[in-house]
Amino acid sequence: MSAVRHCAIIGGGVIGGGWAARFLLAGHDVTVFDPHPEAERRLREMVTLAERAWKKLIAAPLPPMGHLHFASTLAEAVAEADLIQESAPEVESIKQKILSEIDRAAKPDALICSSTSGLLPTRISAEMQRPERFLVAHPFNPVYLLPLVELCGGERTAPETIARAKAFFASIGMHPLHVRKEIDGFIADRLLEALWREALWLVHDGVATVEEVDDAIRFGAGMRWAFMGTFQIYRLAGGEAGMRHFMAQFGPALQLPWTKLMDVPELTDAFIDQIAVQSDDQSGSWGFRVLEAKRDDCLISIMRALKAQDFGAGATLASFEAQLGRTAPQGAPLRLYQGRVPPEWIDYNGHMNDSRYVEICGYATDALLAKIGMDAAMLERGFSYYTVESHIRHLDEMKLGDGFFTTTQILSHDEKRLRLYHRVLRNDGTEVATGEQMLLHVDTRAHRATEAAAEVQAKLGDLATAQAGLPWPAEAGRAIGMK
Amino acid sequence: MSAVRHCAIIGGGVIGGGWAARFLLAGHDVTVFDPHPEAERRLREMVTLAERAWKKLIAAPLPPMGHLHFASTLAEAVAEADLIQESAPEVESIKQKILSEIDRAAKPDALICSSTSGLLPTRISAEMQRPERFLVAHPFNPVYLLPLVELCGGERTAPETIARAKAFFASIGMHPLHVRKEIDGFIADRLLEALWREALWLVHDGVATVEEVDDAIRFGAGMRWAFMGTFQIYRLAGGEAGMRHFMAQFGPALQLPWTKLMDVPELTDAFIDQIAVQSDDQSGSWGFRVLEAKRDDCLISIMRALKAQDFGAGATLASFEAQLGRTAPQGAPLRLYQGRVPPEWIDYNGHMNDSRYVEICGYATDALLAKIGMDAAMLERGFSYYTVESHIRHLDEMKLGDGFFTTTQILSHDEKRLRLYHRVLRNDGTEVATGEQMLLHVDTRAHRATEAAAEVQAKLGDLATAQAGLPWPAEAGRAIGMK
Repeated sequence: MSAVRHCAIIGGGVIGGGWAARFLLAGHDVTVFDPHPEAERRLREMVTLAERAWKKLIAAPLPPMGHLHFASTLAEAVAEADLIQESAPEVESIKQKILSEIDRAAKPDALICSSTSGLLPTRISAEMQRPERFLVAHPFNPVYLLPLVELCGGERTAPETIARAKAFFASIGMHPLHVRKEIDGFIADRLLEALWREALWLVHDGVATVEEVDDAIRFGAGMRWAFMGTFQIYRLAGGEAGMRHFMAQFGPALQLPWTKLMDVPELTDAFIDQIAVQSDDQSGSWGFRVLEAKRDDCLISIMRALKAQDFGAGATLASFEAQLGRTAPQGAPLRLYQGRVPPEWIDYNGHMNDSRYVEICGYATDALLAKIGMDAAMLERGFSYYTVESHIRHLDEMKLGDGFFTTTQILSHDEKRLRLYHRVLRNDGTEVATGEQMLLHVDTRAHRATEAAAEVQAKLGDLATAQAGLPWPAEAGRAIGMK
Repeated sequence: MSAVRHCAIIGGGVIGGGWAARFLLAGHDVTVFDPHPEAERRLREMVTLAERAWKKLIAAPLPPMGHLHFASTLAEAVAEADLIQESAPEVESIKQKILSEIDRAAKPDALICSSTSGLLPTRISAEMQRPERFLVAHPFNPVYLLPLVELCGGERTAPETIARAKAFFASIGMHPLHVRKEIDGFIADRLLEALWREALWLVHDGVATVEEVDDAIRFGAGMRWAFMGTFQIYRLAGGEAGMRHFMAQFGPALQLPWTKLMDVPELTDAFIDQIAVQSDDQSGSWGFRVLEAKRDDCLISIMRALKAQDFGAGATLASFEAQLGRTAPQGAPLRLYQGRVPPEWIDYNGHMNDSRYVEICGYATDALLAKIGMDAAMLERGFSYYTVESHIRHLDEMKLGDGFFTTTQILSHDEKRLRLYHRVLRNDGTEVATGEQMLLHVDTRAHRATEAAAEVQAKLGDLATAQAGLPWPAEAGRAIGMK
């Protein structure tokens, strides 16, 4: 079996176009067949969208993009393809006909995949002469971003076809999930359909609007589903007692009319055992507390990511932060250093050199360290704060003779670390630069980080408490980036 | 009605404990009643977990934490409370009894809330004397992180009770969703239960394991649900043609056996109209392309956030990036500056001052600019690159006389911007510092950013192409932070 180089796309709509984009971005050449007059325009637009997305998503060099061609017949599109992805409408008879055409025109060892969301591979491949190289590869929209692809073979699919497909889809950044039992809707769409049908009933019965149904997901359970499925989430909801306890506690609720789906499996001891054992397998060596902390960290990361998007729960977080900022008592940043730009600080651009902002922030830091008792005696004893990281933002220029001053805010601190936010302002009040710094308290003889003396920590604590009401600088914690 | 200051928690398990933590962190005093011998230990552990989470989540000064008390009777716990949150087991008769006890012992204007996931407020409040101040406030685990709270009144709940509850829960960082029609399971749990029951069937019937069911969500649709619900997601899946097209295209699939939930509403024209109109209302002025880009940006943010957690789809992304890094052709970073540490660069710690690393990076940048034609003549014509942002990481020290050199990698560039990654190495090969910089091409007379000359861009492009195979530095794009 040869490696996949050339892919064919049969049906270039939202799903087929998404596949085309992912294949191209992963470096494969793609030939598309779609008779719709608008197909080429739409598909090219989707490739542009996907390219923009990959450049933001992937912090690694991308391979050269594959070449995109449009064929005028199905046979022409698949003739040279190593992998053919069918994304025609979800109608069994249509898929049967198209797959049989593909089967006749494709190279003998080509891998033939259907994007169907839930039709049975055995049935849609019924008219193929060589169904052993056929399987379902069901993706999720947007295909160029979401990693899941469900792989499901039919009765005549060869085991090596599944293995080849697994390797190929993993090689283009996806997470292949082998659906071992052929069933309508596979795994994911059975779950999605159950929720979708219930959602339709809620709107149909006037219980909630479309927007209310969506909000009931995205502000709550939806954020958990981004990284843990229902079983693992419920295991954690069972508290320290785990899955068996959860099933015992919430099992009776299965009899309650909490959804239209009232046909439920009986919770026999054997079935509860089966779930508990599989849940233990899933969590592996992760203990309850570790998994619970991971859940929280993932939720925090997601909410902060969504805050940057000002969307959904991220917008809720942003407005809560703004409210806390308004109601908190206001402290004052420390004015620790001032001066005037001397001639030797001017560079060939005629303004103060970049490195001098770090130097100015350094003077402000030194003044702060003096305030908390990090004096010459402490240095003599072998203790100092070292700057381990600085982030400087240049907002304006300074010229020869400009007067300036600094303000300093303690962002956070612990036994060893100190995080500062300096601002450099011209005397006219213009913010010229900001300097965020992380410092580490070190034993200068042992060359390692160590806890600061108790009296130093206490003085630091007092200064930080006095500033506790200051708003968090909007740009603190920002990384350099380029969209 | 007085403002809420003091909260009572009746039942301090996973949900009650989560409520206690959120109330305390938002600055409210909390009194807990839970007769379980382990209740206090568990609840205090949860408060510790929640405090850690809020410090990571919220970039604003937190109010002083409220005081936590444990009461030995229910009556004592609720006596002084302005808001009482009941989180007893999900059994109607138990809730009825506890709510009636609360009703008798509470202050007349106290707000009484039940955490029930799906029992009807009218029924569980049946034995209350003053049910007008009662409602369901249904949260999601972990309560101290997820913002959603469903508010649902019973037949005798006063409208101002709903209004008070909305204002209170919003004030503690939540997203209140008013469930206007009293229904078993409210909105969210109807959706969750439908999915959960289907998930149980999949395991019961041997279609998939617990882990496979979870993976079918978290690597795919789950990430979308973190910020958009099913209706909005499907609207976008309909492509440019929108919701009406989606319903027409996928409506027939409702008749397919893609879930156990085969009782589905009939898709009459009127019902499709209702959904399409509500979907238009939900999306408001957001056009299709804007919403589609927002969806992609949210997914990208979430996957990158999960990459930092090395979990779920984030782990898939990390391994894809590693694979791309390995297979890309290798270029070489540029060696642009070298030197030896002079006496005036040494500071009171006996090693080279922080600001000198920026100075060294500046020399490397100048050498690069000379290579791409940003020479004295260009400066004379009024064009220069200004550094607008620098991120310096200090990894080791340099002492008087140490020899060093720099390497420079072009991370990205466009018409106006240039993003560089410098490394400063001692001659023994030790990496002493890294300096990531963003530069902007400026018209120095007009004091504004402008496109670089074509020949400059071309030279830059050649250098960047030669380096295209270099692995992306793991620390590029990193922000200063403190866990």
